[in-house]
Amino acid sequence: MPFVTVELLAGRTVEQKRKAAEAITQAVAEHLKVQPASVYVIFHELSRENLASDGKLFADRQ
Amino acid sequence: MPFVTVELLAGRTVEQKRKAAEAITQAVAEHLKVQPASVYVIFHELSRENLASDGKLFADRQ
Amino acid sequence: MPFVTVELLAGRTVEQKRKAAEAITQAVAEHLKVQPASVYVIFHELSRENLASDGKLFADRQ
Amino acid sequence: MPFVTVELLAGRTVEQKRKAAEAITQAVAEHLKVQPASVYVIFHELSRENLASDGKLFADRQ
Amino acid sequence: MPFVTVELLAGRTVEQKRKAAEAITQAVAEHLKVQPASVYVIFHELSRENLASDGKLFADRQ
Amino acid sequence: MPFVTVELLAGRTVEQKRKAAEAITQAVAEHLKVQPASVYVIFHELSRENLASDGKLFADRQ
Repeated sequence: MPFVTVELLAGRTVEQKRKAAEAITQAVAEHLKVQPASVYVIFHELSRENLASDGKLFADRQ
Repeated sequence: MPFVTVELLAGRTVEQKRKAAEAITQAVAEHLKVQPASVYVIFHELSRENLASDGKLFADRQ
Repeated sequence: MPFVTVELLAGRTVEQKRKAAEAITQAVAEHLKVQPASVYVIFHELSRENLASDGKLFADRQ
Repeated sequence: MPFVTVELLAGRTVEQKRKAAEAITQAVAEHLKVQPASVYVIFHELSRENLASDGKLFADRQ
Repeated sequence: MPFVTVELLAGRTVEQKRKAAEAITQAVAEHLKVQPASVYVIFHELSRENLASDGKLFADRQ
Repeated sequence: MPFVTVELLAGRTVEQKRKAAEAITQAVAEHLKVQPASVYVIFHELSRENLASDGKLFADRQ
């Protein structure tokens, strides 16, 4: 606790997620005054046919 | 914003999700008074072994 | 099932949510081929100090 | 309703999820005073590169 | 980990949530083979104007 | 997009959330290669009777 969930399009590398998890954890621990060991980060990866904005799937954008 | 997340069993076609995303976006924009461009729709697809009702997995139903 | 969750800023009237729930349910039922009776809609209302974009809380925007 | 979502590392068997869904449903129905038929359980399975604690991906742990 | 989120209508007592949290944790620990100490349970309470089924708010039901 | 949701116990000041939103946005933008303007951060605040670990509500801990 806290639990941080990141909804994002699939396609990042493990290295990008590794760095992001580390930096998000630091940001949360420092500013919300919690121990880094208590912070969980979850990535929910979405395919381009499972995300839309403005009524249009990302799979249909160019 | 708003962000609309739809949890559903996997198995819909891209065309079904395309139409659903469009219609949900219209419904939200019209009734919640926001621009369609600010509406995001996310589909979370579930396999039948990852959803249960009445204590029973959908994978075990007929 | 399906379950539709709408994250939005607080401040809509009950009437707006009533209409939105009805229209979203219709959109989902028609395009994802489910019975309206099986569709659930949940509104998660956020205060302006609990939502940020571009690194800035909505409470701090004008 | 209620809807119970379980975020967990991937790797459980169908049998484990079957038993867990049944037991969670019983726990919810008994203590929150609802009919078992109204309880939904959803499993969100995470790969080890999509979960971190203490700033470190589970994929990088031993 | 695992994280269990329960979406439910507001109105349960603390005692009901206390018992539910305990029983859900036992169910998860036993069947998903994790330590009880690693299980988190979160209750998201919804008002009757923030939940709809069949296109109709619970606030409008009798 | 991406959308970052932070589940945490209630009780932080607006200033803490302001700083956290800014730092999380920077972390996400830098490491996941997105524009800061596309990053949304949502805080879900939980009361101590709505969060449990090890089967015990935080309201019951000392």
